[in-house]
Amino acid sequence: MKYARFLSGGRALSGHLDGGRLIDAAGVAHDPARVQFRLPVDPPKVIALALNYHDHAGELGLTQPKEPALFWKPNTTLLPHGGTVIYPRGAQFMHYEVELGVIIGRDARRVKAKDAMGYVGGYTIGNDLVVRDYVTNTFRPPMRGKGWDTFGPLGPYYVTADEIADPHALRLTAHVNGELRQEGSTADMIFSIPELIEHISRFMTLQQGDVILTGTPKGISHVHPGDVMTLEVEGLGQLVNDIQEEDDLAEPITGQESREGEWDGR
Amino acid sequence: MKYARFLSGGRALSGHLDGGRLIDAAGVAHDPARVQFRLPVDPPKVIALALNYHDHAGELGLTQPKEPALFWKPNTTLLPHGGTVIYPRGAQFMHYEVELGVIIGRDARRVKAKDAMGYVGGYTIGNDLVVRDYVTNTFRPPMRGKGWDTFGPLGPYYVTADEIADPHALRLTAHVNGELRQEGSTADMIFSIPELIEHISRFMTLQQGDVILTGTPKGISHVHPGDVMTLEVEGLGQLVNDIQEEDDLAEPITGQESREGEWDGR
Repeated sequence: MKYARFLSGGRALSGHLDGGRLIDAAGVAHDPARVQFRLPVDPPKVIALALNYHDHAGELGLTQPKEPALFWKPNTTLLPHGGTVIYPRGAQFMHYEVELGVIIGRDARRVKAKDAMGYVGGYTIGNDLVVRDYVTNTFRPPMRGKGWDTFGPLGPYYVTADEIADPHALRLTAHVNGELRQEGSTADMIFSIPELIEHISRFMTLQQGDVILTGTPKGISHVHPGDVMTLEVEGLGQLVNDIQEEDDLAEPITGQESREGEWDGR
Repeated sequence: MKYARFLSGGRALSGHLDGGRLIDAAGVAHDPARVQFRLPVDPPKVIALALNYHDHAGELGLTQPKEPALFWKPNTTLLPHGGTVIYPRGAQFMHYEVELGVIIGRDARRVKAKDAMGYVGGYTIGNDLVVRDYVTNTFRPPMRGKGWDTFGPLGPYYVTADEIADPHALRLTAHVNGELRQEGSTADMIFSIPELIEHISRFMTLQQGDVILTGTPKGISHVHPGDVMTLEVEGLGQLVNDIQEEDDLAEPITGQESREGEWDGR
């Protein structure tokens, strides 16, 4: 089943997809193209993977990690399908990243890989946006590169695990303004979903609703204000978000902005 | 005012400190030594600082960062005053870190340093526990070093901002089994509280209840199962937690555990 949460006529609803229509709890059908999507889930936490595809590490000139390279997408990054990503003023190199998002179905602690798939509730699509300008210091991946508000589009659906026969054999693509830019298969993950759940739940309780963004394949490229990103993972639908320039409230960013402000005392 | 949340006689209560007693909403006085503390706040997110004291960077043989080095303490790490920290089986080098925790009082976005203190709701004590065995790869600070369940003791009180005349002039100490191990002053922070709020809120909305753990001074040392850590920040009380060995359910940890399990297929 594919579930969605959405706004229609000003009401916050949820429903499931049936014959191309969203059927809400009252049995009313809604056109997915005419509703405003909300996040498919409110994750207690979102954990993302750096360099979890064989070809992407090479693309960045980095060696493959020996253990899962985990980082955090703050909940303040999350953005539904159809929402607008804000392009930071002064940024030069913003990249999309199409990813399979694994939604935890029940609390997982010290789960072995062989049992891990029983803890998967479903799947969704994630876009792990990054401004690589800010990925320059010794702290990798830095929060400032990946953690901007709106840098975590997620959705459109919560696709239950039973709908996906093999989550390690899904085609992923990213189109920008209709042009194919990124293409891969979840078969190329370095650490598989069960391995990730075992690794993470060994030290951190994975809670129901948590999302693991499992990494991105080769094919990153720059995006700019005005661009529309269409991300697809086989069987999960399409996650579409546009990009708009940050408004004029913000001053241009420099690497040392916070050290050079007018505040002059402690 | 110093606020606490606690359990007494099986009831979840909150109250304020008055004359050494916790006064609950019904006006009943409780002995702080006899209640079970809960977390002083439920933070939407906890953001921590690596290397934010001049002397601590040198102690680790690392250069001081040019911008705040942010990392994440998952909410699953949080542990109240009096709770037991779990020592991972097989770990060798666990360190406490006493820190001033800044509690955000209202949502902050694009706040300038000169206005930032108006967004501080109060303060608490944080213990940013780490197992340095797991701080060995190129991803720093790694989630696996800092992110274990129970590795984020926080409390005991929510001390309102008006109680602390100058948060940049507070003595911090950590005692282990009564022995002074760590001592410093918040005056030695590299990036001050207003600078941190400006830096973070430039890209990420700081939400009411968020906690910023502002870094630790020099004086880290190893702790072991059976140890009791008593952390103090001037004016904020004492945060006390013991350490116990992980139970026998867990297998010993190796760096590659998740690659060497018995699960044999994708």
